[in-house]
Amino acid sequence: MKKKVTIYDIAKELNITAATVSRALNNNPNISQATRELVLKTASKMNYEQNKLALALKSGKSNNVGVIVPRIDSNFFGSVIRGIEEELNPHGYHVIICQTDGLEEKEASNIEALLNSQVDGILISTSSSDITIFDRVLKKEVPLIFFDRTKNIKKVSSVTINDFEAGYKATDHLIQTGCSKIAHFSGDLNIEIFKDRFLGYKQALLDNGIDYIEDYVIPTKSSIEAGKSNILKLLNLENPPHAVFSSSDFAALGAIKELRKLNIRIPENFSVVGFSNEPFTRFMELPITTIDQFPLEMGKHTAKVFLEQINNNSKTRIEKKVVLDPELIIRKSSKK
Amino acid sequence: MKKKVTIYDIAKELNITAATVSRALNNNPNISQATRELVLKTASKMNYEQNKLALALKSGKSNNVGVIVPRIDSNFFGSVIRGIEEELNPHGYHVIICQTDGLEEKEASNIEALLNSQVDGILISTSSSDITIFDRVLKKEVPLIFFDRTKNIKKVSSVTINDFEAGYKATDHLIQTGCSKIAHFSGDLNIEIFKDRFLGYKQALLDNGIDYIEDYVIPTKSSIEAGKSNILKLLNLENPPHAVFSSSDFAALGAIKELRKLNIRIPENFSVVGFSNEPFTRFMELPITTIDQFPLEMGKHTAKVFLEQINNNSKTRIEKKVVLDPELIIRKSSKK
Repeated sequence: MKKKVTIYDIAKELNITAATVSRALNNNPNISQATRELVLKTASKMNYEQNKLALALKSGKSNNVGVIVPRIDSNFFGSVIRGIEEELNPHGYHVIICQTDGLEEKEASNIEALLNSQVDGILISTSSSDITIFDRVLKKEVPLIFFDRTKNIKKVSSVTINDFEAGYKATDHLIQTGCSKIAHFSGDLNIEIFKDRFLGYKQALLDNGIDYIEDYVIPTKSSIEAGKSNILKLLNLENPPHAVFSSSDFAALGAIKELRKLNIRIPENFSVVGFSNEPFTRFMELPITTIDQFPLEMGKHTAKVFLEQINNNSKTRIEKKVVLDPELIIRKSSKK
Repeated sequence: MKKKVTIYDIAKELNITAATVSRALNNNPNISQATRELVLKTASKMNYEQNKLALALKSGKSNNVGVIVPRIDSNFFGSVIRGIEEELNPHGYHVIICQTDGLEEKEASNIEALLNSQVDGILISTSSSDITIFDRVLKKEVPLIFFDRTKNIKKVSSVTINDFEAGYKATDHLIQTGCSKIAHFSGDLNIEIFKDRFLGYKQALLDNGIDYIEDYVIPTKSSIEAGKSNILKLLNLENPPHAVFSSSDFAALGAIKELRKLNIRIPENFSVVGFSNEPFTRFMELPITTIDQFPLEMGKHTAKVFLEQINNNSKTRIEKKVVLDPELIIRKSSKK
C-alpha cells in the first residue's frame, strides 16, 4: 500500500507545526487566511487526502452501520439484512455485515473489527453467552441493538418475535388436527429463542391436557442430515410420536425425506411443522407447514430503533423492546 | 455518542502542543521520558483511547478485508464468502461484507464505505459496467481482486470459473442424451459470465451441427417466477423446444414446476438443466441436473490471491487470472 501523506509531512514541508496544519485544514478561525491557503495548496500538491474516516475520528460519525449475524446464507438473516438496508440506505447509511458462524470468539472479534471501523451503530443477532463482549460497545456509547437472538442488557433495545407464541401456535395446530403424540426438534436450549419455542410447545401440551414426554424432545441442528437421523430416533422409540414440530425448516425437510423413504404418508400418518418459512418450504411438491417470522419487518424495525437512538438528543437513553407476532402458515405437511 | 477525548484535549489540559502529545503517545525519541510519562498518565486519566483505527490511519493496516457481492442470501455467494473467511481468519483478517443488489450506484457507495473504513483489500463480484468506480481503490493501491463477476482491468487479479465451458458442457450433455431442440434461459448478456455461458451454449450447438434458433434464447431473471413465465413462452412457439439449459437454478425450478402442472413428463418429454448447484436442486423429489461452480474453492482462491498481493514486497504488482473448471452434475431432470 502507498505510504499515506500525513499532516506531519505537510508540517515538515512548510516548517510549521502539525497542529497548525490540522487547524488550517479544519478551518480553525485562529489561523490566518494566508497560512490556510498555503497549507491547502501544499496539501493538494502533496496529494494529501483528508479522508472521511479521519474526519469521522473527530466527528464520531462514519455513516457505516455494522450488522452481525450467525450466518448470511440463510433466507431468514438475508431478509432481515434486506429490511435493515431498505430502511437505512435512504438515510445515507451504508450497511456492513459480519458473520459469526455462531461462534462466540468470532463474534467478539467481529465486534472489535466494527468498532475499529468506527461504525455508527451495531445491530446484532448474538450467539454469545458472555455479555461482557459488549462492554466496549456500551462504554464507547455506540448504539447497540439486538434482533432475533437477543440478550437482556439494561438500556439496550431489541427486536424479536414472540418465539413462545410461535412454539405454542405450531404445537396447538398439531393438537387441533388430531395429533396427541407430538415430538419436538429443539435447537440449542441455551439460546433464548429456542428455549422459548420449546416452552411454547410444552405449554400447548399442558393446556390441552397432554402429557409431556421427555424422549420426544431432541436437540437438533438446523440441517437436513440432523432431521433425517433424529426422525429415525423418534420412530425407534417404544411409543413413537406421529407428529413433529421442528424448530428448523431444514430439519423438518430432512424428516420429511426420511418419512417418505419409509413410505410413511404425510400428513395422513405423520404431520410435520417447520420454522422460518424458508423459500423451499413453499416450492416443494409437499409444501411444509411453518412459522413466518417476518424477517423483512424485523430488519426494518431494528433499523428504525437505531435511527431513533442515533437521532436522540436527550440525555436519557431509549430502551425499546419490540416484539413481533409470528404467523402459522398451514400447508400440506400437516392436516388442515 | 460520547464525545471522544482527542490529543487536543490532552494538549489543552497539559498546556503543551497536540504534536507533542502525539509524539509522546507514539514513543517518539525526541520527547523526554518525563513528558512521555505525564502525557500517558493524563491520557489514561482522561479515558483517552488511542484506538486501532487511528493507528491504522498511520500504519495503513486495519486487518479488515471488504467483500462486495450482489446478494448475500444466495448459496453461491454465501459459500464463496465462507471460503474467503476460512482462508483469511487464520491470518488475523476480519471479513466485512456489503451487498449491492446488482445496482451500480450501491456498488460505488459500498466501495466508498469500505475505503473509508480503511480496509486492507477489496474482494468483489461486480455488477458495474463502469470501471471508473474502481479508480479510487487503484489510486490508493488497496489490493482489489475480482471473483465470479469480473472486469478486465490491467494489473487486477481475478478468480472465475470457465463459464464458456460450463455452458458448453450443459448443452452438450442435452445433445448427447438425444435433445436437438434446446432452448436457453440466459441471464443479462451484458454481464460477462452470462455472455460466456450463452457463447458456450451456441458453440456446443454449432459443433454438433444443430442450427441456432434465436427465439430459443430468452433473457431470464434468476427467479422461479421468471422460469415459469418464460417456459410458457417457449411452449407457445410454433416449433417448441424439448429441453432448456437455464443459467439459473431458480429459473430452472420455475420451469419444472410449470411443466409438471401441464403434465409434461420430465425428462421423458422435456429435459431441464440448471446452473449453480443450489442446495434445493439436490433435495427436491425430482433433483435438477446442474453445474457446480465450486464456490468454496473460489472463495479460498480469491483469499489466497489477496494474501499473495498484500505480502508482496517487490514493486511489481502481481496479476493473476485464476480460472476454475466447472462440473456438470447429472440428476433426474435430464436423461443419463
